[in-house]
Amino acid sequence: MPSPVVDGMVAYLRREATIGGYEASAESTARLEGVYDSIARLVGSKREEIALTENATLAWQRAFYSLRFGPGDRILTTSAEFAANYVAFLQVARRTGARVEVIPDDADQVLDPEALERMIDERVKLIAITWIPTNGGLVNPVETVGRIARTYSVPYLLDACQAVGQIPVDVHALGCDMLTATGRKFLRGPRGTGFLYMRDDFLKDIEPAMIDLFGAPWVGPERYELRSDARRFETWEANYAARVGLGVAVDYALSIGIDRIERRCRLLANELRAALGAIPGVSLHDLGDRPASIVSFTVRNVGAREVMRRLAAGKINVSVSPPTSTPLDATRRDLPDIVRASPHYYNTFQEVETLVSAVHRICT
Amino acid sequence: MPSPVVDGMVAYLRREATIGGYEASAESTARLEGVYDSIARLVGSKREEIALTENATLAWQRAFYSLRFGPGDRILTTSAEFAANYVAFLQVARRTGARVEVIPDDADQVLDPEALERMIDERVKLIAITWIPTNGGLVNPVETVGRIARTYSVPYLLDACQAVGQIPVDVHALGCDMLTATGRKFLRGPRGTGFLYMRDDFLKDIEPAMIDLFGAPWVGPERYELRSDARRFETWEANYAARVGLGVAVDYALSIGIDRIERRCRLLANELRAALGAIPGVSLHDLGDRPASIVSFTVRNVGAREVMRRLAAGKINVSVSPPTSTPLDATRRDLPDIVRASPHYYNTFQEVETLVSAVHRICT
Repeated sequence: MPSPVVDGMVAYLRREATIGGYEASAESTARLEGVYDSIARLVGSKREEIALTENATLAWQRAFYSLRFGPGDRILTTSAEFAANYVAFLQVARRTGARVEVIPDDADQVLDPEALERMIDERVKLIAITWIPTNGGLVNPVETVGRIARTYSVPYLLDACQAVGQIPVDVHALGCDMLTATGRKFLRGPRGTGFLYMRDDFLKDIEPAMIDLFGAPWVGPERYELRSDARRFETWEANYAARVGLGVAVDYALSIGIDRIERRCRLLANELRAALGAIPGVSLHDLGDRPASIVSFTVRNVGAREVMRRLAAGKINVSVSPPTSTPLDATRRDLPDIVRASPHYYNTFQEVETLVSAVHRICT
Repeated sequence: MPSPVVDGMVAYLRREATIGGYEASAESTARLEGVYDSIARLVGSKREEIALTENATLAWQRAFYSLRFGPGDRILTTSAEFAANYVAFLQVARRTGARVEVIPDDADQVLDPEALERMIDERVKLIAITWIPTNGGLVNPVETVGRIARTYSVPYLLDACQAVGQIPVDVHALGCDMLTATGRKFLRGPRGTGFLYMRDDFLKDIEPAMIDLFGAPWVGPERYELRSDARRFETWEANYAARVGLGVAVDYALSIGIDRIERRCRLLANELRAALGAIPGVSLHDLGDRPASIVSFTVRNVGAREVMRRLAAGKINVSVSPPTSTPLDATRRDLPDIVRASPHYYNTFQEVETLVSAVHRICT
């Protein structure tokens, strides 16, 4: 998190402790409401199409579980889908009799839009895919998918967790009905934040799977009425300090410019990829011809967790993706635990070099 | 929030910004795991019976929406139930054909256990009640309800939002299968925290309404397996700073002693109630013979929001409960917006007097 994000949260928390929780949110109403405007600017939506959530999973769940499926309905997803989404598909399939089907990939193991179009029939009730999977650097052709979804009027749910804050996002260009994201990854926002975009024309027919008096106020003896905006997916209670942090993070990213962020990320990631690829004993596991800033690799004879541990000793942060985080892709490619390095715009070429040297040393 | 709660969160957030989010949680594993032990101590459960959630509503929703109902099944609740829960009952009733029925009250408008017992038959699939409703100071006879629930083997979901941190909670004495609470009220914890207790013997048969890879790891091509503990109701991603704050708040309350907290709260609340009741033009709206530390009142000819505004000008925090927050009770008692004053143990008799004098001035 950049300092203004932390400072914003800290000041807000101290204010809550000083004057009271309700009192702090009341005096910050404009700022808290402004978070919706910031996110709307970030993704090119209306503010009424944004719901704030406590993390990306909740955003995704609140959208996905609100959709209705019946026996024989088809849910189409990708081979690189995040396991969290995939187990939810399996649960709903078991409950409703819907089927989960994987859209074939092209030779580069990127989602194949031609194959997707061939799958479409009247039983396809959802296309739910991940833009940039949790590892592999893969960037799926989400705009083309959007055109297919629009052409055949199939609801389209896009998991944009690794995309938001890294590359430009425009929900109209994407043609998606729903988009979910986290604050804590490339946006550099706090943990405990996420959001759901739902297109207004789409959301008006969607009743949230779970409601409370915020999204669905009680209006008569046996009646509640859903809010007209995307906030029908929120609960009344929220973590306002975290929301403040999210708002600061979004404004911070916008002030730098997402185009600039993307270029810088790609430059650093490609530099890293090229240098790691040149080390004997290092295998890259990235996919696609224009991979994003998630560089996935393994080191011969050294487990991913051990690589992470040794890098951490040199104050280099990487993470490890176990095969269970993207089970279909991991099974197909027979992936072990892999190391994931995600350079961001604030990293330097010097830091990339430091990481590469450190991996070199691990290999020898 | 007490200073140690805020300081704990602030230190954790700064640590995340300094060394990274995953790195901060890794070095604080023991502390973060300890939050489950603290809450287990607070409510007298096993740690495996606790799930942490982002607020009390989510805790309640994750429990309630995971239960299965069919046409004609009966859900029993109270007249003072919180509207958030009530709209959820209505939604599930509409979806499943279950019926929502209100347990009659006794002459003091407290839940009548005799009436409850007479309602029980094999179609009663849930007793879902609120211990201390959001206003009215009412304390429902939750232990007696628990004995009835146990005797007839009816699942029992208890909303303990206003109870936890104010009065002793012992899930075994309560006889409940599920209990939900927030961190931010009498516990003095941060916003964005809550928890669910679910009895281990009960939870083993309950599949969460929504899952992700944390609660239900992917274990084979088309299979996930639910975690064996209550954390099957959690998501993988969490707000760790908020959890740290919650843990500190629970330990803080335990170190003071919940019995002492209860006595002090009751003393201050009764003092306030008596003094307010003696002011001509003030009406108390509390219920039951041993009301808790939520003092509800109105002032003749001055709206509740105006009372709140004027008190706030004197740095006195109260809140306003609109009728829509407890629709059944508000309709029955024809309640307008009411002012809610909740003295806590840290308040002084002097502060109670200051509030009373201020209300006096508003009346004249």
